[in-house]
Amino acid sequence: MGKTLAVNAGSSTLKFKLFETPSEKVITSGVIERIGLKDSIVTVKYGDGQKYENTQDVKDHEEAIHLMLKELISLKIIADYNEITGVGHRVVAGGEFFTDSALVDDDVLQKIEDLAEYAPLHNPAEAMGIRTFRKILPNVPNVAVFDTSFHTTMPKTNYMYAIPYEYYEKYGARKYGAHGTSHRYVSGRAAAMLGKPLKDLKLITMHIGAGASITAIKDGKSFDTSMGFTPLAGVMMATRSGDIDASLVTFLMEKLNIKDPNDMIEILNKKSGLLGVSEYSADMRDLEKVQDKNEKAHLARDMYINRIVGYVGKYIAEMNGVDAIVFTAGVGENDIPIRQEVADKLSYFGIAVDPEKNHIRGVERDLSTADAKVKTLLIPTDEELMIVRDVERLTK
Amino acid sequence: MGKTLAVNAGSSTLKFKLFETPSEKVITSGVIERIGLKDSIVTVKYGDGQKYENTQDVKDHEEAIHLMLKELISLKIIADYNEITGVGHRVVAGGEFFTDSALVDDDVLQKIEDLAEYAPLHNPAEAMGIRTFRKILPNVPNVAVFDTSFHTTMPKTNYMYAIPYEYYEKYGARKYGAHGTSHRYVSGRAAAMLGKPLKDLKLITMHIGAGASITAIKDGKSFDTSMGFTPLAGVMMATRSGDIDASLVTFLMEKLNIKDPNDMIEILNKKSGLLGVSEYSADMRDLEKVQDKNEKAHLARDMYINRIVGYVGKYIAEMNGVDAIVFTAGVGENDIPIRQEVADKLSYFGIAVDPEKNHIRGVERDLSTADAKVKTLLIPTDEELMIVRDVERLTK
Repeated sequence: MGKTLAVNAGSSTLKFKLFETPSEKVITSGVIERIGLKDSIVTVKYGDGQKYENTQDVKDHEEAIHLMLKELISLKIIADYNEITGVGHRVVAGGEFFTDSALVDDDVLQKIEDLAEYAPLHNPAEAMGIRTFRKILPNVPNVAVFDTSFHTTMPKTNYMYAIPYEYYEKYGARKYGAHGTSHRYVSGRAAAMLGKPLKDLKLITMHIGAGASITAIKDGKSFDTSMGFTPLAGVMMATRSGDIDASLVTFLMEKLNIKDPNDMIEILNKKSGLLGVSEYSADMRDLEKVQDKNEKAHLARDMYINRIVGYVGKYIAEMNGVDAIVFTAGVGENDIPIRQEVADKLSYFGIAVDPEKNHIRGVERDLSTADAKVKTLLIPTDEELMIVRDVERLTK
Repeated sequence: MGKTLAVNAGSSTLKFKLFETPSEKVITSGVIERIGLKDSIVTVKYGDGQKYENTQDVKDHEEAIHLMLKELISLKIIADYNEITGVGHRVVAGGEFFTDSALVDDDVLQKIEDLAEYAPLHNPAEAMGIRTFRKILPNVPNVAVFDTSFHTTMPKTNYMYAIPYEYYEKYGARKYGAHGTSHRYVSGRAAAMLGKPLKDLKLITMHIGAGASITAIKDGKSFDTSMGFTPLAGVMMATRSGDIDASLVTFLMEKLNIKDPNDMIEILNKKSGLLGVSEYSADMRDLEKVQDKNEKAHLARDMYINRIVGYVGKYIAEMNGVDAIVFTAGVGENDIPIRQEVADKLSYFGIAVDPEKNHIRGVERDLSTADAKVKTLLIPTDEELMIVRDVERLTK
């Protein structure tokens, strides 16, 4: 029996979840927020619904990891660091190099740092997290689990942009996608629920939350995905625009008197999406509370649904068929009316959700009516579990 | 009986076509190329297959129009300018203002010039063309026919981008689409061919040529279209990228050491698409000649097909159904294998093209197999005829 840690290091956060293996029981989970800022917040959930919270300054990720491990001891969640048998790290960008998760050695770590240009906010923090664990727990194996690996199976027709070819050869300008660990997890669960081999299914997995991406899965492999070179592209998100006409970048720069195009991309990432259109909130729950009397909130929600519906149609066409669509992530797992409306708008394809079955949040369930030609599944995602499984797979 | 002229003034070209009305018989057509450059080329087709060609310097559009009218007299196509009873002008950008073609007065002309920021290469040339005709033929009515008007019926959910709402209010940042005159023409013909009222049909019209756009037509109106704020967006084109991740604009600017973002947009408009990917040609015919031994030409063609297939699926989903799809424009009217491959890739939807019926170029024909659930139509577009009809409608 072992204890495996799944770690997700953001630019100013460190999330973790400790699993018992091979039972896959969650022992504890927690987060350290505001790393590098004043009054960082440490939260740990453990035991039988217990919760520990503390506010203190945490200057960097190394200190955050030290603190996390110390709290695991002081809360008696573990008695000794040696109980930790493996650590899995979420890494955003794996480029074309990492087609699977990887047991970390010096070369792997270096490569993760080299790929920082594809995820400048994420890869450096994640590399630092890995480096710190290697220092503090030198005998414990680390595994890097990439958001992009699952999508490295996309055919060239789907991942190439119609831009000069040499930009792909020289600079790696292509579609990489994201949320791969989540799409991989739910597609596996979908096959189990449908009682068929994954390789025989055509699936469309909708990871829709604050970040959102939709993936076409054919022959058990990612065939296409809505996020692009970066997670800016694709469907509409909480604060990200999703697909726009690239000409708007220059047009708006002129109008807004913005000199650095990166500032424009920042607006498309941070001030657009639900927040930008509604001028009210980036959170779908807030919009749904006011949509009856707030026209822009209503529009933002309608657009969010419209973009999802469009991508489902696109991927049914690209795969020339579909067996099931899957809802997951924040909105997908919890927003009952959005699931219903998306399904209703796709009725032409034989997609039909039973309102009674749909009246549920966050559990695995087949939501389809008895006569639905295409199944609609609700599957809560579990990226941490997938990370832990990859640690087991690559270290045992 | 009258003679109505359809005029299309580009930045360095002037195309024209003279129709007899109401018979809609084409009397003559021609083009003046390289306006403003050395050795402009004048070509006029008339009579029973006769062709006039001449090379001379033409310094601007005013001179080009004078020259064109002079040639109509000297080639005895008309005896007097008074025979011309109306002139219709193609105008690229009509913004939200022009929801239909418009009889030109001072206000309309001013408005066309004001809209130049949405089509900086086109609207000024077109306005100049109109101004010149008003000067030379002061008693002949001019009608402006906008590429965008047909798309002004799109619902807000479809034309808004998920960017800060104020950019729409202040700067008109939204989807306008293009090729509206073509989509309008072929949708009308499709309804006639199907023997049903247009308002009862769900159509997807594929105007695919060097420029390419796909439109979803519902209740007889444009419901969504693939071009966006500008004609850069949507499917892949001869030299335009179509949809890309907007982040690539800044990423590539850094890699290519480009200082002005407009230079990057220029690359996406002029050096991308089929040309950029194939590194060989922007012309599909050239790519098809070499695709068996040229991998990049093959890839470019596959991507071109892939993007069309994706948009058809997207629009079937958005309309929640489809009665017929329509091929038109250069590739759509003439490329037999591309039509077949697009249809084959959409077989799941009940789209099926009969290879024998499909073995044809440039004529109206229902290409569907007997048991196709969704019809596939070939309809050569005729934007000039549509322009002339609008002149008749608005001046009689």
